[in-house]
Amino acid sequence: MRRAASSEWLIDALALRVSASGDMTLVYQLYSTLRTWIQHGELEAGVPLPSSRHLSQALSISRNTVLAAMDRLQAEGLIVSRRGAGLYVAKLPTMPLPVDPPATALVEYSARGQALLDRCATLSQHYHAFAPGIPGLDLFPHAQWQRLLRRHFHQADTAWFSYQSLGGLPALKDALCDYLTLSRAVRCRPEQIVITQGAQQAFELIVQLLTDSGESVWMEEPGYGGAQTAFQAAGLTVTPVPVDEEGMNPALCPAPTSSPRLIYVTPSHQYPCGVTMPVPRRLALLECAARHGAWIIEDDYDSEFRYDTPPVPSLQGLAGQAAVIYVGTFSKVLYPGLRLGYLVLPDPLADAFRLAHARLHREGNYPVQSALAEFIAKGLFSRHIARMRASYRQRQACLRNALSPAIEKGLTLSSGHAGMHLLAELDNQTQEQRLIELAHQAGITLSPLSRYYLGQPQRAGLVLGYAGAPEDELHRAGRWLSQAWLSLHEGRKPHAKLVYCP
Amino acid sequence: MRRAASSEWLIDALALRVSASGDMTLVYQLYSTLRTWIQHGELEAGVPLPSSRHLSQALSISRNTVLAAMDRLQAEGLIVSRRGAGLYVAKLPTMPLPVDPPATALVEYSARGQALLDRCATLSQHYHAFAPGIPGLDLFPHAQWQRLLRRHFHQADTAWFSYQSLGGLPALKDALCDYLTLSRAVRCRPEQIVITQGAQQAFELIVQLLTDSGESVWMEEPGYGGAQTAFQAAGLTVTPVPVDEEGMNPALCPAPTSSPRLIYVTPSHQYPCGVTMPVPRRLALLECAARHGAWIIEDDYDSEFRYDTPPVPSLQGLAGQAAVIYVGTFSKVLYPGLRLGYLVLPDPLADAFRLAHARLHREGNYPVQSALAEFIAKGLFSRHIARMRASYRQRQACLRNALSPAIEKGLTLSSGHAGMHLLAELDNQTQEQRLIELAHQAGITLSPLSRYYLGQPQRAGLVLGYAGAPEDELHRAGRWLSQAWLSLHEGRKPHAKLVYCP
Repeated sequence: MRRAASSEWLIDALALRVSASGDMTLVYQLYSTLRTWIQHGELEAGVPLPSSRHLSQALSISRNTVLAAMDRLQAEGLIVSRRGAGLYVAKLPTMPLPVDPPATALVEYSARGQALLDRCATLSQHYHAFAPGIPGLDLFPHAQWQRLLRRHFHQADTAWFSYQSLGGLPALKDALCDYLTLSRAVRCRPEQIVITQGAQQAFELIVQLLTDSGESVWMEEPGYGGAQTAFQAAGLTVTPVPVDEEGMNPALCPAPTSSPRLIYVTPSHQYPCGVTMPVPRRLALLECAARHGAWIIEDDYDSEFRYDTPPVPSLQGLAGQAAVIYVGTFSKVLYPGLRLGYLVLPDPLADAFRLAHARLHREGNYPVQSALAEFIAKGLFSRHIARMRASYRQRQACLRNALSPAIEKGLTLSSGHAGMHLLAELDNQTQEQRLIELAHQAGITLSPLSRYYLGQPQRAGLVLGYAGAPEDELHRAGRWLSQAWLSLHEGRKPHAKLVYCP
Repeated sequence: MRRAASSEWLIDALALRVSASGDMTLVYQLYSTLRTWIQHGELEAGVPLPSSRHLSQALSISRNTVLAAMDRLQAEGLIVSRRGAGLYVAKLPTMPLPVDPPATALVEYSARGQALLDRCATLSQHYHAFAPGIPGLDLFPHAQWQRLLRRHFHQADTAWFSYQSLGGLPALKDALCDYLTLSRAVRCRPEQIVITQGAQQAFELIVQLLTDSGESVWMEEPGYGGAQTAFQAAGLTVTPVPVDEEGMNPALCPAPTSSPRLIYVTPSHQYPCGVTMPVPRRLALLECAARHGAWIIEDDYDSEFRYDTPPVPSLQGLAGQAAVIYVGTFSKVLYPGLRLGYLVLPDPLADAFRLAHARLHREGNYPVQSALAEFIAKGLFSRHIARMRASYRQRQACLRNALSPAIEKGLTLSSGHAGMHLLAELDNQTQEQRLIELAHQAGITLSPLSRYYLGQPQRAGLVLGYAGAPEDELHRAGRWLSQAWLSLHEGRKPHAKLVYCP
């Protein structure tokens, strides 16, 4: 066809492709067939097309159909008309089409892209027993929440479906402000709050507005991978600062180092070690931040779940809000898929963050925010937290009980005063690695403490989430782990019956 | 109190604060009162506290209440016990508390933060006539959509509420793939799709994985502010490439310049000029990208709304998917507050993007994605688009009609073959600036074309959105604009009756 595109040949070929019984309109069939042939070089530049009258008669379709298809081809530059001489195939730049996609090995990611991808190896799709940070979705009041969603979607203001730059629905900011003031001793007014699509977006905003690429952030070591990722993605130099039994210890910061722009801490319940930062250390940290001119990020991710005392007051409340940016999330107290988090900002930062969020990320989901505002304002949120606190306490007890044979022989667990996971200390990296492998063979995903280190791990252990799994599963998984640990501890070969069926 | 903290004085002061009729528990009242006094230095380090027996009798509360409050103060490091001598106020690092928040003028944003904030000046909360990019929310099938949401929330798999790393709900990717293949001539399989929380997140992922700070991106000039912001936020050097009547023209790129890593285009309907890139220019662009080893970002934001012909096939489909990343959004075809967008990736990139998205942004909103999957698969989506297309065509006609007095005197509008806005060309920047001011006085927000330029604006004009406003409002606003333009055009002083009441 390429060389000898006589009119008759072309019409015969078209008759095979264009049919009134097809799914597509006749115009589209005619247009797309010619388009493909022209693009693939089967109809060469300069080839004349039959007249619309000729084509319509030969193909038994209306002349308007032919004209519409030709108009479109002409509009797209695939055919051209020569005055008084009809239509011709246009001259297109030569290019082999379609291009074969390059093989995976040939894709060159950027340096920051590759660093990000290197951290993705640890992503798991398994959220069974021991998965850290997963709330008890089986205990969530789904029906109640759905009723609220339904009503708030129904009552929604049309403007809520459009773009917004309010920093979140005002009703949610009001309700959240009351809650944070009362329950977390955060000092704030609703204007200081910006609602985000999760804590990750909150971290992104902070690094975007307050740091430049190459500047330094101090980060708890071991610490939270999500924050590490956000800082590294923004080109920051992350300086790991060791955590001791009182949380991040600035005195242990490897000197000399440039002044940090940010200091990231989880003072209420250090992630993943579980310690609470006492007030003297908090004051020392505030003083240290002031000296460096750094902002503190207080990530208060799960401190609602405190089992021994009421939740520890926030660092932000202690600091008189001056230098502390408080970050919270609903992923742990409600559910991760909700994608709602928030920032409580020092007054002078609030407007800038609100505008930058609207510009960089866009706002949305106002009906969901409205339902959540009612959930909080009506006390359903506090009641849900109280119920979860009781359940998680039971789940933790169940896990401890299942691990008791190992505990009796020396396995050390963190205090478990708070949160959704326990830290089991191990003797060394070899033992950690061996347990991970055994668990993998048994179908259990364990989170090694080494994964939470940016530098060389100084301790070995396992981060054991217990909030997301029902007691029977926790019991079975806990028994398995207890036996596996005992085998290694006593230098025995692990027994065949360790195979675990969830 | 500071110096003379005798036991009796302290007990009298506590009696004023601790009351069984208060909102808080007695433990909390006692704890928080002492905590505040210690932190503020009103109880100095070394001051002994009355015994728990003494306090409980003097305040008429149970001894267990006193012990619980003291336990907590001790746990937080605010009081210490001396063997056999009772409890004392601990020594805290000295620090003036609370610190006054710094004045706004003192906040030092980062260079990238300040650049982002400089772009926020243009954010508007007014989404009346002429706001570009706003769909007709008054025409959205809210009731139908709510029914779907309700059902899909009800039927939701519990796992949907947890973290995910599937790149979006598979059912949505399937439905979207069918739609894109048929309607947009995109060549893809569902595995190539990653669902994001809007197009901004899609841009963020692209720059994160494929570029490093300081590298170059070619951007249409004038072009889309959201993409400009995402590129600049990631530290890219944005090279503006002029748009002519066939879209971005690589031949007009200011040489010499380093090879771009990315080339951003809106080939179906250039934003904001409204031109469609013909096939020869598309092929030239693909060839140019291949020469530079650059990835093309095809932003196909509103091409569903084509009024003269069926939607123009995508550049991605033409390219054999090799070097083109296709970005779409549901903000224009459904509504912005939905926060759903997507990427169609070349095969070798798909897995990396899926994992990086889960790691960097987290996934969520699966019940909403499930409702949307049904909305698309059942043809409701196509029907909605067809209805909107008819309505937007009418709204455009209404705006043209309202502007007809000015058009007769030479005001030039873009073709309006597609999309949700028209471009009105103006003589010069002075006229543009004058109209913006007049409109502002009349309560109308106009979008000047100059705002879409990164460099010196080469043309003057107004970007007139018409999709989001009902016809009566468009008519009144259009008439106002027509008269205002005529006044300036004819050198008359604008008439007082130009005041516009929406």
